[in-house]
Amino acid sequence: MSMARESAELSAWATLDRRAVYEAPPFVRLSVERVRLPDGRVIEDYHRIVKPDYALVVPQRADGRILLVRQYKHGVGAVGLYPPGGYVAPGESPLQAAQRELLEETGHVAGRWRSLGAYTADANHGCGRAHFFAAEELRCADTPRSGDLEAMELVFLTPQGLLEAMTRGEINALGAATGLALALLPGFSISPENR
Amino acid sequence: MSMARESAELSAWATLDRRAVYEAPPFVRLSVERVRLPDGRVIEDYHRIVKPDYALVVPQRADGRILLVRQYKHGVGAVGLYPPGGYVAPGESPLQAAQRELLEETGHVAGRWRSLGAYTADANHGCGRAHFFAAEELRCADTPRSGDLEAMELVFLTPQGLLEAMTRGEINALGAATGLALALLPGFSISPENR
Repeated sequence: MSMARESAELSAWATLDRRAVYEAPPFVRLSVERVRLPDGRVIEDYHRIVKPDYALVVPQRADGRILLVRQYKHGVGAVGLYPPGGYVAPGESPLQAAQRELLEETGHVAGRWRSLGAYTADANHGCGRAHFFAAEELRCADTPRSGDLEAMELVFLTPQGLLEAMTRGEINALGAATGLALALLPGFSISPENR
Repeated sequence: MSMARESAELSAWATLDRRAVYEAPPFVRLSVERVRLPDGRVIEDYHRIVKPDYALVVPQRADGRILLVRQYKHGVGAVGLYPPGGYVAPGESPLQAAQRELLEETGHVAGRWRSLGAYTADANHGCGRAHFFAAEELRCADTPRSGDLEAMELVFLTPQGLLEAMTRGEINALGAATGLALALLPGFSISPENR
């Protein structure tokens, strides 16, 4: 399979026009685009959803246990286990956001960080990008002081315990499942140029 | 850590009121809820985004190679590798949607299916649920006949080749990364009662 042929056939769509239809900054902005497909067809109502990027970190203690927060999420409507994380603030890098959220939500800092990649949250509509990190050399530095709306509890699970929690459905959100599965995946790491 | 204590502390939020603010069925509906937190605080503008559920399938051939589609996605703005899949149609189960999309997009059917779980796409805003399956005993049954807007190409990758594509950033969407990481994760399967 030739990469040149692929690139020629799988061309980007052209955005001809874009109008905002709903705005509630900073959480969500919705716009409708008029787009032209490579074969010439025009779509009049492509919906793009703009949301802030977020960063999640999978922190692992020297004994191998993974630090998670148990919390209620209203989007899910249930309590679940989540890697620490949150929205990337204006002017902040995804790594800085992950480090800030780890400290705020759990009171921990980590000595070693590696990227697990960045992914568009919704391939069809956009919805911002999710940035994942694994963190090691974890140590407690402060009392958690999250300003978030959710009450939360810290939980330390072995990798096997985490897998079991996943099979029981305790990981119920897409971003959490992605970060944890990527962190547990043997041999996976992101090339420096793709961070 | 007592489960009873956790359940008592991490309570669900109460939705006091909900009003639609933007509707573009079937792709996206946006509403604003008034919600009461367990500590009594009231949030006036919680945004819920309703999108259709989708199903993705990671199909593996008898020789171990994984079948993916390479396609342009306008939400990402780039070409990437995706497990076959799409929206769950009204009246369809997630498994039926996965089987239909596998046949439509790739012309393949599979003899053995297992669930990799279902996850809310956005823990904060909802955005529908993503359902993942692994499929084995794959065989070609028909010519692909996708009615979708995107041109696509079929690609068969070894698990190692897929890991390498992931490190190069060729998996660029959250749902795709989740499904592939869960499928590659040794020892992961979902308990029957959590399918």
